[in-house]
Amino acid sequence: MIKLTHEENLIADRIKVLKNAAGTHSPSIFTVLEKIPELEIKVDACFLSNPYATDLFVEHLKEKLIDTGKIRDVLEFYPSQNAVIAELLSNYLGINKQSIFIGNGAIEIIQAILHNYTRKKIVVNIPTFSSYYEFLKNNTEVVYNKLLKEENFELNIDAYIELVKKEKPDTIVLINPNNPNGGYIKYKNFIYLIEELSFVNTIIVDESFIHFAYEDYSFEMKSIAHLVESFQNLVVVKSMSKDFGIAGIRAGYGVMSKDRVSSLLKNGYLWNSSGLAEFFFRLYIREDFLKEYEHVRVKYIRETQTYFNKLSKIKELKVYPSLANFALIELLDGTKSDEFVSTLLIRYGIYSRTCNDKIGLDGEFIRLASRTSEENATIIHTLNEIFS
Amino acid sequence: MIKLTHEENLIADRIKVLKNAAGTHSPSIFTVLEKIPELEIKVDACFLSNPYATDLFVEHLKEKLIDTGKIRDVLEFYPSQNAVIAELLSNYLGINKQSIFIGNGAIEIIQAILHNYTRKKIVVNIPTFSSYYEFLKNNTEVVYNKLLKEENFELNIDAYIELVKKEKPDTIVLINPNNPNGGYIKYKNFIYLIEELSFVNTIIVDESFIHFAYEDYSFEMKSIAHLVESFQNLVVVKSMSKDFGIAGIRAGYGVMSKDRVSSLLKNGYLWNSSGLAEFFFRLYIREDFLKEYEHVRVKYIRETQTYFNKLSKIKELKVYPSLANFALIELLDGTKSDEFVSTLLIRYGIYSRTCNDKIGLDGEFIRLASRTSEENATIIHTLNEIFS
Repeated sequence: MIKLTHEENLIADRIKVLKNAAGTHSPSIFTVLEKIPELEIKVDACFLSNPYATDLFVEHLKEKLIDTGKIRDVLEFYPSQNAVIAELLSNYLGINKQSIFIGNGAIEIIQAILHNYTRKKIVVNIPTFSSYYEFLKNNTEVVYNKLLKEENFELNIDAYIELVKKEKPDTIVLINPNNPNGGYIKYKNFIYLIEELSFVNTIIVDESFIHFAYEDYSFEMKSIAHLVESFQNLVVVKSMSKDFGIAGIRAGYGVMSKDRVSSLLKNGYLWNSSGLAEFFFRLYIREDFLKEYEHVRVKYIRETQTYFNKLSKIKELKVYPSLANFALIELLDGTKSDEFVSTLLIRYGIYSRTCNDKIGLDGEFIRLASRTSEENATIIHTLNEIFS
Repeated sequence: MIKLTHEENLIADRIKVLKNAAGTHSPSIFTVLEKIPELEIKVDACFLSNPYATDLFVEHLKEKLIDTGKIRDVLEFYPSQNAVIAELLSNYLGINKQSIFIGNGAIEIIQAILHNYTRKKIVVNIPTFSSYYEFLKNNTEVVYNKLLKEENFELNIDAYIELVKKEKPDTIVLINPNNPNGGYIKYKNFIYLIEELSFVNTIIVDESFIHFAYEDYSFEMKSIAHLVESFQNLVVVKSMSKDFGIAGIRAGYGVMSKDRVSSLLKNGYLWNSSGLAEFFFRLYIREDFLKEYEHVRVKYIRETQTYFNKLSKIKELKVYPSLANFALIELLDGTKSDEFVSTLLIRYGIYSRTCNDKIGLDGEFIRLASRTSEENATIIHTLNEIFS
């Protein structure tokens, strides 16, 4: 069991103050370093993104915007309107442009859907991404469906369907793979689930981590976004922050019925992209970029799964199965998750996420992201040292 | 009077299609060039921003982010949360951090206020920025207060107060200086107006163009944002796109009562900034940057007023008085504004804004922005040629 020194405890207290100020999220690495400059962060394993994709994007940005001087235009002028960018994506996604809604990050789409389409009652699986209950308007009833530790936090589809049929919510949310555990619902099970739940007014499926999931070793990703045409109650939310490693740009899109898109655009969301987000979206639909991206996506998945395997060999940790780019980890040696996360940060410069603010988790849990293979090796090395 | 050739008319029709798709806004320069590649745009006088401030920002971006390689961090990681950036601005603005709300451009703040605080009835001066009536939720009654051509579209303060007292709206909007004419309400008149209208639940004052206005030749700007502490019904909206020339970054803030900020943040608007917007805000509060900015602000104001003077010497045009960085111009020779704008664009590469979609304007009006002194000279030269 880990024990912090008195001095380390003082820093740990300051970290807690920042964490509390950030609510049920982690303070950004910038905030942490600004407020506690004596910390040295070597690995940000709090942050859920593919660093190889960031490299790829930075390369294209350098070549196409910085070296050409075109960055000035991207900064100076208004980006295109929402519908113009939706039209760009339409061909690539194979989805009608009127069913695509561009967001300033997925979080804006989540907010728009919950504020506009969730009325009385929502079913949320826990543990989950907290915005799905925190962003609700007042007076919305939340029914929490607890994913069970004994079932590795995987969704029990039949029990879930039964619960939804009983509760009759107007909205349900499924994150696939789920955050913070990485549990994945297979494509064919999803179809079954959606067909069974056609009476639910709004089915939100958050595919922000879908690029890291796979069903066989072709590593093909299986989005259900195209089902929106058949299922008018489906809303697919997609962040670009994780798979493309560009959280700072704030880019996301939602796929939903034409009526919903037009009603959202009717009185808002006009220039909610930025110049850089538009640049990204224009890159995202290019065949040459996608080919390069596919390479770093599969490379990252392979390294991530290797990393999870190595983590799972440490007997003081229980690593829950994940098809995302992070793993939910239970501390089995009696250490409190807060203390463990503080030690990792203060003593080893590894920023990880305590999960003690996640409702629906009984026990001491942390979440570790997968980063570059070198960074993952540092994490493994450090954990082995801690538990040796 | 201008007559387009047959070929020019065909292009003009394509411009109209783009304009219609963009609603009551202009299609972006990127959209125009993408859809009508045979156009060559030399001056974008549609676009309302200080180009010298863009230069200044690009210089700092190059020095601080590109040359150091730190741009990667800004792209990769999440920006700080809304309240963290508000805290940064607090000292500089001299306003309590809990009264500051950060927006993804002013447009997001306008949307947030209208959707959350406007209930039944709003008074809007026309001509105006269309989002102030288009973004309203259904069933909100709009009372239009027509600014009179005979009064140079200036607000008649006593008549306005009388109207508001009679109509008893829950929300009123004042853009200062007003868009599209640049009419300015002096600081002392504003105080009088707000004091008289203390019964109005929400007084939105949009100061997006305030950096271009002045009351004497010290060129000091007079924001009323600090009055929010005394007037809880006041909401000051501030875009950074115009004065700092960075529309592509999407940065803005609102100043309003603490209750309103905390109620907006309670269930949304978490990461609605971007990495670049945060970089900008961190720059914006630096004394050295502000000193350099002040220089380009005053330089631009002087050049803008000189440009307006030259425009007003063309006898076929009536230039309405403006303390913003654009002028509303009436065509006196019988040319239709659409046709005039098309000619300027197709024949001379000058992109300007037709105002025939602005409600409350009787006659043929265009809006011309002020750009660099060279670009302004090109516009003057071209107009003199057209009317010679």
